[in-house]
Amino acid sequence: MAASDYLRVPKQEVLRFCHECMTMAGASADHGRQLAEVLTEADYRGHFSHGINRLHTYVREIQMNTTCGDGCPEILKDTVTTAWVDGKNLLGPVVGNFCMDLAIKKAKEAGIGWVVAKGSNHYGMAGWYTLRALEHRLLGISMTNSSPITAITRAKSKAFGTNPISLAAPAIDGDSLVLDMATTTVSFGKVEIQNHKNEPIPLGWGQDAEGHLTTDPKDLIYREGALVPLGGPEISGGYKGTGLLIMVEILTSVLSGGNVGPNIRRWNVNTSEEANLGQLFAAINPECFSPNFEDNLEDFLSTLRGLDPSNPDEPVLVAGDRASRHMKMVDEEGGIPYPRNLLTSLNQLAREVGVPPMEALK
Amino acid sequence: MAASDYLRVPKQEVLRFCHECMTMAGASADHGRQLAEVLTEADYRGHFSHGINRLHTYVREIQMNTTCGDGCPEILKDTVTTAWVDGKNLLGPVVGNFCMDLAIKKAKEAGIGWVVAKGSNHYGMAGWYTLRALEHRLLGISMTNSSPITAITRAKSKAFGTNPISLAAPAIDGDSLVLDMATTTVSFGKVEIQNHKNEPIPLGWGQDAEGHLTTDPKDLIYREGALVPLGGPEISGGYKGTGLLIMVEILTSVLSGGNVGPNIRRWNVNTSEEANLGQLFAAINPECFSPNFEDNLEDFLSTLRGLDPSNPDEPVLVAGDRASRHMKMVDEEGGIPYPRNLLTSLNQLAREVGVPPMEALK
Repeated sequence: MAASDYLRVPKQEVLRFCHECMTMAGASADHGRQLAEVLTEADYRGHFSHGINRLHTYVREIQMNTTCGDGCPEILKDTVTTAWVDGKNLLGPVVGNFCMDLAIKKAKEAGIGWVVAKGSNHYGMAGWYTLRALEHRLLGISMTNSSPITAITRAKSKAFGTNPISLAAPAIDGDSLVLDMATTTVSFGKVEIQNHKNEPIPLGWGQDAEGHLTTDPKDLIYREGALVPLGGPEISGGYKGTGLLIMVEILTSVLSGGNVGPNIRRWNVNTSEEANLGQLFAAINPECFSPNFEDNLEDFLSTLRGLDPSNPDEPVLVAGDRASRHMKMVDEEGGIPYPRNLLTSLNQLAREVGVPPMEALK
Repeated sequence: MAASDYLRVPKQEVLRFCHECMTMAGASADHGRQLAEVLTEADYRGHFSHGINRLHTYVREIQMNTTCGDGCPEILKDTVTTAWVDGKNLLGPVVGNFCMDLAIKKAKEAGIGWVVAKGSNHYGMAGWYTLRALEHRLLGISMTNSSPITAITRAKSKAFGTNPISLAAPAIDGDSLVLDMATTTVSFGKVEIQNHKNEPIPLGWGQDAEGHLTTDPKDLIYREGALVPLGGPEISGGYKGTGLLIMVEILTSVLSGGNVGPNIRRWNVNTSEEANLGQLFAAINPECFSPNFEDNLEDFLSTLRGLDPSNPDEPVLVAGDRASRHMKMVDEEGGIPYPRNLLTSLNQLAREVGVPPMEALK
């Protein structure tokens, strides 16, 4: 798309818009704000697949009471270092913030905080929660299961989500590593982009309804095909991506008693069924280990970024570097770039719920 | 190879042989036994790349005092839930067993045990340590960094190990999930097998000395090429495998103050330099979370194994299922199958160190 097909919206306006849409849909002011912050941050970081483009789904779920818009997560069991939490079917970010803040508190006191939740919902980007730990100079880990869209190695049909893993670790002067990755080869959004461009997908991104690898994005979008785990075909390590995806299930849903992948309702469809997702939030206090963690990490990140690249035009990147670059660009240009048609669709949602449209920069 | 090219050796004889070679090389009886147990278990589970085929390297390192054959790891700092350990350059399994047993103790008392070691050496298969947690009905996690053999996405040269991740989780009646995977597409052993067969490697297993993907195993074996992280090329998710490999470094070497990948000496070469590997050993007590973890995991594993396969001849497997099948086969046939030429080479080592040869079944 040409630059003219994009409009820039200041972060504060994105936040205002998301917040008002959520509260008009029925969420409490506090819960609406928590969701708005996660979506806005995702777009600010250039993680557009987990930003405001998903607002309509969260709005619908609150409108239909599929997700509860007010209340408080409940600690069912805890020790000095662990907690088991019932998310009470609240918005994912409400559950996630509650649990990560608890993990941070425990990590400060006992070295590690390990909090597992059931009864949660889609929580936006996993990195939001691990970034929270960074603010306290801790390492953060988060994982979640999600609605079926992925077929594991050898399986014919989708039975798992994209089951992301995030790790954030603090370096010096605001530098950090922020890994936030689905355990599938790619996100569904990338398949949709190939489809819009009428181009094939690389072999190893997805499979058709019969369970065979395909290069046709339409097999995934219209014909019950599925994403595949990182590694793609079995011969190039798909079974390892499968292992990671299952690891995420065990540390989230099996440990918490939430729904496991095959039992989770599809997202984005009209259903009154609760998602009952399982999620993990952990924080690690580096002071319990080798001294000067932040300096040591900074040295390590510098080593990584300085590795001799195969192609001089493509320097080695550290997880989180693309996001840093995107945030800098947004700050310089005064707003987050959105395609015009996304704003059109969001403003239609705004009219429905009775919220003033989102104002782009002139 | 034909079946006649293999000889079977009873587990006890493999253990005896490894143990005696190590003690004759200079390790204490206790440390030699700990190493022997890890190598024997790897072969018993069919994990031959981490078994007795590596014995000569451990023997040489003890002979040359590159690794210390006696002593005790030291706890440098600890809390109710964490410990920072100096492995004192002892054999990897000695450090690993010490640390995992400490993590298990802490997990029983406080819910989580999180132990990080520096000053360690190659510890054999990562799964050995997580299996140890299973015996106590805990979940186990272990990771290690290792000598450079892998080039991360966009980098021209090898600077990292295969940085494995293991998770073990207990189900009922001895069933379990045991994930034990390198974060590279494949192990170096698989590249060597293709070379022995004079066959190419699939694109996405490795790159040549210029940093370009290659199908020629000789590029990796003789010409300074490298393995690549899970996902292979950047377009199919190699940057995610890179992220996982870096995650392992941060949770092992950066947290412990051990050497990071690019600074670790090559393995298997004559050097007096210490490896100073970093390793993580964690244990999680499922009783701190949802009740009946073992039953819930069993249900989940049954669901996984029962998923409709794309190819009816290839049922869906859970991590650890291949190992279970291999152990059953070894038990039924009375011994572990080894190629004749491996036994020849091991018996030559035995003559050098003055140990009776390994006796195969007639």
